[in-house]
Amino acid sequence: MMTPSELAPRLFIAMVVIVAFCWVVAWLLGKVGQPAVVSEMLAGVLLGPSLLGLVLPDVQNALFPAQMRPVLYVLGQIGLVLFMFTAGYEFASHRPPKIVGTAGIVSLSGILAPLALGVLLVVVVRNHVPVFADGVSTGVSAAFVGVALAITAFPMLARIVTERGHAGTPHGSLALASGAIDDVVAWILLAFVLATASGEFGPALRTVAGALAFALVLWFFGRRFMTTLMERTRFDPRRRVIAVLLVLFAVAWYTDEIGLYAVFGAFCVGLVLPQREESADLVAVVAPLGNGLFLPLFFTYSGLQTKFGLLGDPAVLLFALACVVLAVVGKFGACWLAARLSGQSPLVSARVGALMNARGLMQLIALNVGLEAGIVSDKMFTALVLVALVTTLMTVPALTLIDRLEARRTRATVILPGTELSPSAG
Amino acid sequence: MMTPSELAPRLFIAMVVIVAFCWVVAWLLGKVGQPAVVSEMLAGVLLGPSLLGLVLPDVQNALFPAQMRPVLYVLGQIGLVLFMFTAGYEFASHRPPKIVGTAGIVSLSGILAPLALGVLLVVVVRNHVPVFADGVSTGVSAAFVGVALAITAFPMLARIVTERGHAGTPHGSLALASGAIDDVVAWILLAFVLATASGEFGPALRTVAGALAFALVLWFFGRRFMTTLMERTRFDPRRRVIAVLLVLFAVAWYTDEIGLYAVFGAFCVGLVLPQREESADLVAVVAPLGNGLFLPLFFTYSGLQTKFGLLGDPAVLLFALACVVLAVVGKFGACWLAARLSGQSPLVSARVGALMNARGLMQLIALNVGLEAGIVSDKMFTALVLVALVTTLMTVPALTLIDRLEARRTRATVILPGTELSPSAG
Repeated sequence: MMTPSELAPRLFIAMVVIVAFCWVVAWLLGKVGQPAVVSEMLAGVLLGPSLLGLVLPDVQNALFPAQMRPVLYVLGQIGLVLFMFTAGYEFASHRPPKIVGTAGIVSLSGILAPLALGVLLVVVVRNHVPVFADGVSTGVSAAFVGVALAITAFPMLARIVTERGHAGTPHGSLALASGAIDDVVAWILLAFVLATASGEFGPALRTVAGALAFALVLWFFGRRFMTTLMERTRFDPRRRVIAVLLVLFAVAWYTDEIGLYAVFGAFCVGLVLPQREESADLVAVVAPLGNGLFLPLFFTYSGLQTKFGLLGDPAVLLFALACVVLAVVGKFGACWLAARLSGQSPLVSARVGALMNARGLMQLIALNVGLEAGIVSDKMFTALVLVALVTTLMTVPALTLIDRLEARRTRATVILPGTELSPSAG
Repeated sequence: MMTPSELAPRLFIAMVVIVAFCWVVAWLLGKVGQPAVVSEMLAGVLLGPSLLGLVLPDVQNALFPAQMRPVLYVLGQIGLVLFMFTAGYEFASHRPPKIVGTAGIVSLSGILAPLALGVLLVVVVRNHVPVFADGVSTGVSAAFVGVALAITAFPMLARIVTERGHAGTPHGSLALASGAIDDVVAWILLAFVLATASGEFGPALRTVAGALAFALVLWFFGRRFMTTLMERTRFDPRRRVIAVLLVLFAVAWYTDEIGLYAVFGAFCVGLVLPQREESADLVAVVAPLGNGLFLPLFFTYSGLQTKFGLLGDPAVLLFALACVVLAVVGKFGACWLAARLSGQSPLVSARVGALMNARGLMQLIALNVGLEAGIVSDKMFTALVLVALVTTLMTVPALTLIDRLEARRTRATVILPGTELSPSAG
């Protein structure tokens, strides 16, 4: 039995190891153009039983003893809440361009196709593959897998688009608008799955009623309340930070209490934070500690739950690979097809598909929510973490490949000006 | 048994209650001029078994269930480490004026008198009052009580002096210099007590050797290392914050490992942080979250250990009152006398005595260190928390009283110019 005073220094050194290891992986993967969030997801998995626990089990136990896990979880949740808050704020700052028609079709296709494929997969393999949690109905399992495959990591998509300076381009605008719609719809779907997962009428009703009340309060008073809070604390920026965090934690607690999980509430508080310079200053104080220090602890906790060794079972491996293929076909394929049918060029459609396909942190959050709710077994968790990793890892290489294709085609047209260029003369 | 996913939302709402309650108490006590740290100390005690647990035990158990205590402790330690880091940085920024002679005499008197009185008290009452921890020698108990009474809360002293704009006055300079010396000497003494508490040669040697190695590394490479770190990260302020925090946590872990406790290391990292604008920016990011969010959790954890109900035992109450009286007489009295004998005016001497007498957070930290080390029983802990509370609460009223005395005297001299003024004419 470890006393709290023995636990605290252990946590200090564990935090140092986790964050430093994230940096090393980010530095290595940064050389091939991968964004930091990909590296942190991977670092968490590598610190878990999938690598460190396999190679150096004693080191893993010394670094993350059993009694530290709850603390890691709680600190990771603080990181998640802070992250979702900044994600909500940034989400609201990207005013989606007025291309709602095409974006609606793209995102709807990008949700319905993987959702349908995921449900179909579960229905087909339900009695053949041992990846399902005990006591969870086929309907709930199918809905969860479908929603998990349908998620798009809007924060990551937005970061890649803005970092590449593509926010104003046709594919950038379309991806931002589609990703935003997808994000909101997928989270609402996940909330429905969670609300109905218990199979009882009471909890589901409580969640729906609580969510409705929350949505009404948010819609009518949310922004006004946050604006007042920001103005009341304008002479004391330190107190302002803490005041906003208290609101954030209180809302996170409420949305968790009604069965919606803390991340929903945190995202909504970010949404209604007024878009002003002082809000940006506040986010700039919260983000480094949240994203830099506490979020890696969430990745590590999540990684400690991920057992890639379970993929040694051929049935589980096949299921995981099927999930990956269906996720890519359903999301990338459907978005690409929808964009093409809406009259977008092949390159724009391919880029939108590649961006929408990244599931990143958002899917990882959904998976952990499912694990907590008892909907997901550790085998299914591992299979879906593989989906999150692969679809996130492939985003930047896919975009680079499309860039190269475009460059080659442009060069081809430049080299042969007489044959292909000057269409006006043709 | 509470799962981590049940624990996290509970912690969110507990943090909201703790911080909001601290604000309410600070607002009330702020009306009578008390600084925030006093209110937070008191708020923590009131949330513990001394008030909330007495009046509404069910509410207390719901807010702070047993399984939350380790998490509260760990988060409070993060708050303490961040606080001691900023305290170390601010300590180094107050360049002590060149009045080392007087300051040395004042601080030495202010340490030796309460130390001697504390030791004497323990030796006298050792076999009559049941406040001592089992298996702790009289020598260690006596030394610990003596050191606890000898502590001065330099961060609080510095804040009061600078907030009142007295940093350049005779009593302000003298109090700052004396408090600084006192702080360092008292913590070194505490380290000695801890190192010898085990009574075994091995651990003490390990502590002394580890501390010596740490002191040497700090002295020769500390500031250079931190300066390099700050310069290397100058293009990425977010990463800079996390890099400094990693160093902080690593050093905190090290000083804890060698038996010196994390707070020592954190203070030292703050000491060697280069005094530059970018360091101040960094501290401005770390301080609100550390002091505003996590430090109140330390006060609450400490308050949960404080049982003022134990003072119902007349012997314990008498011991506690004796500690309070000896603490005030030893610190206030000795500093006042030393200043007077060094030629300071009565008013300057009284102000220096009043400032040096505040023990505040620093004593609370020392007490918790003693509790963790098993040197302190919960009865002695409660008695010494009373000392911390009373001596901290009386600081501002004492200073106000001295101000009034001065104002009355000045008025008297103005009213009777012929009798007391114009000494040059006398």
